Amino acid sequence: MNFTGAHILSINQFQRQDVDRVFAVADQMEPYALRKRVTRVLEGAILGNMFFEASTRTRVSFGSAFNLLGGEVRETAGFENSALVKGESLQDTARVLSGFSDVICMRHPQEGSVADFASASRVPVLNGGDGANEHPTQALLDLYTIRQEIAARGQTIDGLKIAMIGDLRHGRTVHSLSKLLSLYNNVQVILISPEELTLPEAIVEQMRSAGVQVTISHELTNSIVDVDIVYSTRIQEERFSTKEEADLYRGKFRLNQAIYTEFCQPNTVIMHPLPRDSRADANELDSDLDNNPNLAIFRQADNGVLVRMALFALVLDVADKVDEFSYDVRWYNSRQV
Amino acid sequence: MNFTGAHILSINQFQRQDVDRVFAVADQMEPYALRKRVTRVLEGAILGNMFFEASTRTRVSFGSAFNLLGGEVRETAGFENSALVKGESLQDTARVLSGFSDVICMRHPQEGSVADFASASRVPVLNGGDGANEHPTQALLDLYTIRQEIAARGQTIDGLKIAMIGDLRHGRTVHSLSKLLSLYNNVQVILISPEELTLPEAIVEQMRSAGVQVTISHELTNSIVDVDIVYSTRIQEERFSTKEEADLYRGKFRLNQAIYTEFCQPNTVIMHPLPRDSRADANELDSDLDNNPNLAIFRQADNGVLVRMALFALVLDVADKVDEFSYDVRWYNSRQV
Amino acid sequence: MNFTGAHILSINQFQRQDVDRVFAVADQMEPYALRKRVTRVLEGAILGNMFFEASTRTRVSFGSAFNLLGGEVRETAGFENSALVKGESLQDTARVLSGFSDVICMRHPQEGSVADFASASRVPVLNGGDGANEHPTQALLDLYTIRQEIAARGQTIDGLKIAMIGDLRHGRTVHSLSKLLSLYNNVQVILISPEELTLPEAIVEQMRSAGVQVTISHELTNSIVDVDIVYSTRIQEERFSTKEEADLYRGKFRLNQAIYTEFCQPNTVIMHPLPRDSRADANELDSDLDNNPNLAIFRQADNGVLVRMALFALVLDVADKVDEFSYDVRWYNSRQV
Repeated sequence: MNFTGAHILSINQFQRQDVDRVFAVADQMEPYALRKRVTRVLEGAILGNMFFEASTRTRVSFGSAFNLLGGEVRETAGFENSALVKGESLQDTARVLSGFSDVICMRHPQEGSVADFASASRVPVLNGGDGANEHPTQALLDLYTIRQEIAARGQTIDGLKIAMIGDLRHGRTVHSLSKLLSLYNNVQVILISPEELTLPEAIVEQMRSAGVQVTISHELTNSIVDVDIVYSTRIQEERFSTKEEADLYRGKFRLNQAIYTEFCQPNTVIMHPLPRDSRADANELDSDLDNNPNLAIFRQADNGVLVRMALFALVLDVADKVDEFSYDVRWYNSRQV
Repeated sequence: MNFTGAHILSINQFQRQDVDRVFAVADQMEPYALRKRVTRVLEGAILGNMFFEASTRTRVSFGSAFNLLGGEVRETAGFENSALVKGESLQDTARVLSGFSDVICMRHPQEGSVADFASASRVPVLNGGDGANEHPTQALLDLYTIRQEIAARGQTIDGLKIAMIGDLRHGRTVHSLSKLLSLYNNVQVILISPEELTLPEAIVEQMRSAGVQVTISHELTNSIVDVDIVYSTRIQEERFSTKEEADLYRGKFRLNQAIYTEFCQPNTVIMHPLPRDSRADANELDSDLDNNPNLAIFRQADNGVLVRMALFALVLDVADKVDEFSYDVRWYNSRQV
Repeated sequence: MNFTGAHILSINQFQRQDVDRVFAVADQMEPYALRKRVTRVLEGAILGNMFFEASTRTRVSFGSAFNLLGGEVRETAGFENSALVKGESLQDTARVLSGFSDVICMRHPQEGSVADFASASRVPVLNGGDGANEHPTQALLDLYTIRQEIAARGQTIDGLKIAMIGDLRHGRTVHSLSKLLSLYNNVQVILISPEELTLPEAIVEQMRSAGVQVTISHELTNSIVDVDIVYSTRIQEERFSTKEEADLYRGKFRLNQAIYTEFCQPNTVIMHPLPRDSRADANELDSDLDNNPNLAIFRQADNGVLVRMALFALVLDVADKVDEFSYDVRWYNSRQV
């Protein structure tokens, strides 16, 4: 893919070498994200951070990434945009808003809306999530995290063994990550979900035809033995057709420290796209895992900044200039203590 | 008018030479708006972008204009300001907020509110729209667009022939533009609207006594022959007193390519303040005009940034310093491809 | 207190020397707040301005203070954060958001929430108000204003005589200011409120045991004779248990120019945390005081920027570098005219 001036709409745009390029630039962004260095390469550039659906963490992650490259952010949070309500087409909105910025990040509740918008935009558009369809930066930051976590033990994504847990039917995150994993060799995926919430057959087939070894399970503990990564996602009660079905699985997909100790390999990495439901009856990651050094969920969120910086640098073609316009941070940096 | 430190509240403040001054500075802003150059002249300055009524495009246009001059933007979108709800006067709000910024742009649903606010502000206030009253930057960007579009064929605003279409009774935009046109010589205005929605008599009289030749019509096609500009605006169904009245005019003020081809001169410029209703039953501009090179509606929106940059530069007295603190853009600029 | 990297959560953290340090740095910020000089010391730094409860003036004051030091601001206004709604703990929110910024300011409607959040944050957190609990920057800017106003007549906070008026029972502002005043010598406090709304006994005791001379009154006019400062606060109708009780006090705690002239010393300073209810039946400061040169309420708001700049400079350890990275303002400054 030629990144310069490109829209980043779908994980399907990425070949393995494109992912490699994003990750290489993301690595290069670390001194800036860690506040060791400041870069002003995008001083004067404007990100239009258009969140037509609320999402504080994703919105702020994109905005901070752009600020860390030296740029400014103009934004919208939520559906204040009465113009769309008044019958304005997304193309008209795009033609206007793309005159106000150098790059746009857009989230919108409607599937396909971001691609529709991008078709009329004069500047690159990054998909920040369009309904149940795509959220490509989440998939990239997930894979970047996997790569980083297992690199410490000398492993690569080729040969990875990963368990994905939860609502695999509706989880946009898991769908996109599955597609990305299909680009790698000798990957084993164990899909762990209630029967009502299995991964869509089409995605399973796509993985299998790409050479991924896929196993399907409806039980947690025996399926997470001997995996490199446990990737947990939320199960929303309302996804089940009956209360009986929900009760059948209640708590069955919740990972806690006791289960981890009994069943997982000692260095299995725990991931989650966040937010994590920390209430007692949630089907997710127990907070007693918070001191487990293999809990990578907050490193995941941190990596989102690196990956988004990389994408901005690539579509605006400044990856090679980031260091040139940089200097040491002048203020106290609590991260380095 | 002495722009330095002035509030920009109403189009009535402008004499012809003032408009000329704004347009000259707007022309100067083009390399920055087109992202060929970056200027840092307002580095360290703060715009208080106070939108007490939602309007994404106008809010972002003002904010981006200030960013493009190197300044920062602090803002409010919508009526979160519970202080006003708690009985705080607009003057108190102004006294406080003007301590936080160097210039303020304000939109507020109530007529006269922005002038009220400005009376107590310690920094210049730009009216971003106060109810049905004024929206001076819209009128200026409209006239700037007219000037630019017809300049290409060697024409000036003196001698202009313009048709204004739609709800001329309630359209704030048309009212302000009419006042501005009164500053020029040999202007002909054709007012095309349903009988219930004609331009207020006072504005017609103001134009006529300034020498504008005004024609009133209730029919579209024969009235747009031989004009330089067709300026279309929205007709909202609820403006009619009865459904029968609305039905009488349904679709009668909608311009599309077929009508344009049959009735307009081949280079007639099409304008609209946006947003445009693109639904099938709207009384506005059909999307089949989108490939018509004379459709200027998105250039209009782009020009809003130039005009707002010019006003900021003038009230903060930096028009002469913009180029001094500038350098070439470092990133990929999709506009120049 | 060692400010570097510290959370600023409660006024209880401050010893007298700490207050002195904040005020000394705030003094140093004046040329920047008055737009005589620009500093870029925090260029590249990001403030996460997280207002989970709407408050335009406090939010913009914090944001502007950070901009004036050269930093960028990413923010949230109101409870758009559906993550908290979905059961995410404040600690998880803190772990994520603190990865996106260098310092966080947080307001949240729930008492103790900001301290809870700070316990998991990797960057310094400033409390911007947590329900009825604390709002330390307001207390500091109040005391800074008192110090500044009486310094003009050669007085210091030691020996101060101050009347506090209004709803002393629920007023977070008055509680925090009372604690701060306890750090000084020979302070006299006159508490003026309806019987239902007296200052909590614990705070009265704290002041008394610190040597403050406290007088309790339920009548306005005879209690404000011979004080240096009159500090007025709002009485909300719904605080009274019955309408009869409310009617009993209606208008009795409203200060206007006639009362001021008859009862106050000629240079008594008038303060209020704002917003002020300017409606006719409000129990607060009458707008006929607006031309009284001793009305310090807007200087108070201005001082908020100085104090917040000082706190940012202290926790990020750049107080000594602010001047080094500075230059003269380039634009027209209406404040200096």
